[in-house]
Amino acid sequence: MALDLGGTNVRLALVREGHLLHEARLATQAQDGPAALLGRLAAAVHEMAARARAEGSPPAGLGVASPGVIDRATGVVRVSPNLPGWRDVPLAAELSRATGLAVALENDANLYALGEYLYGAGQGGRDLACLTLGTGVGGGLILEGRLVTGALGSGGEIGHTLVEPGGRACGCGALGCLEAYASATGLVGMLAEALAQGRPSACQPDGDAESLARAARVGDALAGELFGRAGKALGRAIANLVAFTGLDLVVIGGGVAPAWPLMEQACRREMAARLRIVDPGAVGIVPAQRGDEAPLLGAAAFARQGLALD
Amino acid sequence: MALDLGGTNVRLALVREGHLLHEARLATQAQDGPAALLGRLAAAVHEMAARARAEGSPPAGLGVASPGVIDRATGVVRVSPNLPGWRDVPLAAELSRATGLAVALENDANLYALGEYLYGAGQGGRDLACLTLGTGVGGGLILEGRLVTGALGSGGEIGHTLVEPGGRACGCGALGCLEAYASATGLVGMLAEALAQGRPSACQPDGDAESLARAARVGDALAGELFGRAGKALGRAIANLVAFTGLDLVVIGGGVAPAWPLMEQACRREMAARLRIVDPGAVGIVPAQRGDEAPLLGAAAFARQGLALD
Repeated sequence: MALDLGGTNVRLALVREGHLLHEARLATQAQDGPAALLGRLAAAVHEMAARARAEGSPPAGLGVASPGVIDRATGVVRVSPNLPGWRDVPLAAELSRATGLAVALENDANLYALGEYLYGAGQGGRDLACLTLGTGVGGGLILEGRLVTGALGSGGEIGHTLVEPGGRACGCGALGCLEAYASATGLVGMLAEALAQGRPSACQPDGDAESLARAARVGDALAGELFGRAGKALGRAIANLVAFTGLDLVVIGGGVAPAWPLMEQACRREMAARLRIVDPGAVGIVPAQRGDEAPLLGAAAFARQGLALD
Repeated sequence: MALDLGGTNVRLALVREGHLLHEARLATQAQDGPAALLGRLAAAVHEMAARARAEGSPPAGLGVASPGVIDRATGVVRVSPNLPGWRDVPLAAELSRATGLAVALENDANLYALGEYLYGAGQGGRDLACLTLGTGVGGGLILEGRLVTGALGSGGEIGHTLVEPGGRACGCGALGCLEAYASATGLVGMLAEALAQGRPSACQPDGDAESLARAARVGDALAGELFGRAGKALGRAIANLVAFTGLDLVVIGGGVAPAWPLMEQACRREMAARLRIVDPGAVGIVPAQRGDEAPLLGAAAFARQGLALD
């Protein structure tokens, strides 16, 4: 069984061999605090577990995808920007106590990467980096089939690598991170700044990343330029990642991913300028295949691996 | 047995459990071309192998550390800036044919990292990145005990990650790489530029990185500032590396490593500014323990692993 804990919605699913059998959704209502949410999660898990038992396949464990910084050894959510007030929440232990299931907790972008590696765009490959372009920029890194987390737990945090010294302020507190350019928040922020400077555009200052993409597709110059900046930032981060790891596959997912064609040319141009030690053309950059399902598929697989289940 | 192929000297050694038993050196004389060098290498290997056999421990294989881009699947040196004229040299096959030994070839900075991981500053740890600050900036990355090379072979090439968009020209052809700031070449280049701009300093324009370090230690302001720039560049690259991998140990080696104390403060300051998602203080940055021996120790271990020897 797999659970994807989002800032707005929670998804719960029974997963079998890369397919979602049953699925349930509930509103996160993070503002009510961890205790209230844990109660509702436990009830939903109970209901789905009962359904699975009735069908003759009782769940052996629960994989949980959570945003934020995870201490995976202890199953604790250290801090999560999309879950206000959550700090050092022992999510795995609490969920396990409430449901009677073994629980394995991991960062949602890491499990997204694992889902795509096992059942999506990364199938049959050796290494993969996943970038989820959404409210922020999540990242997951898999080398030789193993999820890279590191002793500090930050493995795969591509969104918080430097692309522009002294550049835009990122939610993490640093300046010039990839996330400040290639996330929905970054794009909308760059739009507001440009409009405030009097740049002409059909875009409204209160628009979202989707409306910005629509404007770019019908030829709005400013909108096109902003996706170009996002693409250039992606090119810098991917070139660094390839130099660090030698990997040859990057998967683009998340809510902003449909706008990837608007960023691709600038990304490739920057990679060609930056990456001279290997052929930048040998690095594949492809859309995610499993999309929203990826973190659930990854969570189920992670629980099987981490808990040594069936 | 292990061989370290440098641009100036070749070192050959019998290695047993992290110790060099016998060692031989010869001049590389790269300008004579690969064929001439191969002949002299084979003779030296023969001689040392005979000595090992006479002592009752015939060598089972040869690990070779080479600068440049390596195709490890085929044992070919693709290109190496420090070995002029070397392009697509089948070094492993040629050495194996000439010596009768099984040969395993790997990039020298990667084997440096492996040597420090197994027998030096990284002993007992989980992950490690090694930076060798010399003529260039070499790098090696070990995650969970495994050398990261990647399908493209560039794994660990930290020296060619971006620290300054539009910055100094790097030998690789790109602008703003770490190597353009934190190598001896980069430091000397920055010195020449500053002196040409009329900056006051006791340093001579034809000085080397060692004399620059001496000047910085006795208070030469320009020399101190240049090591500060190198340290800041290192801080940016290390912060990115930690975000990408979550690792908590960086080992500094190479000829410029004794000047690390001149760079440390600026490096730590930049890491604190850049790295907000984890505690930058949790990242250890330490000098290499095995120094010049590290690539030989790594090469011997790599041959044992790669060739499945004793």
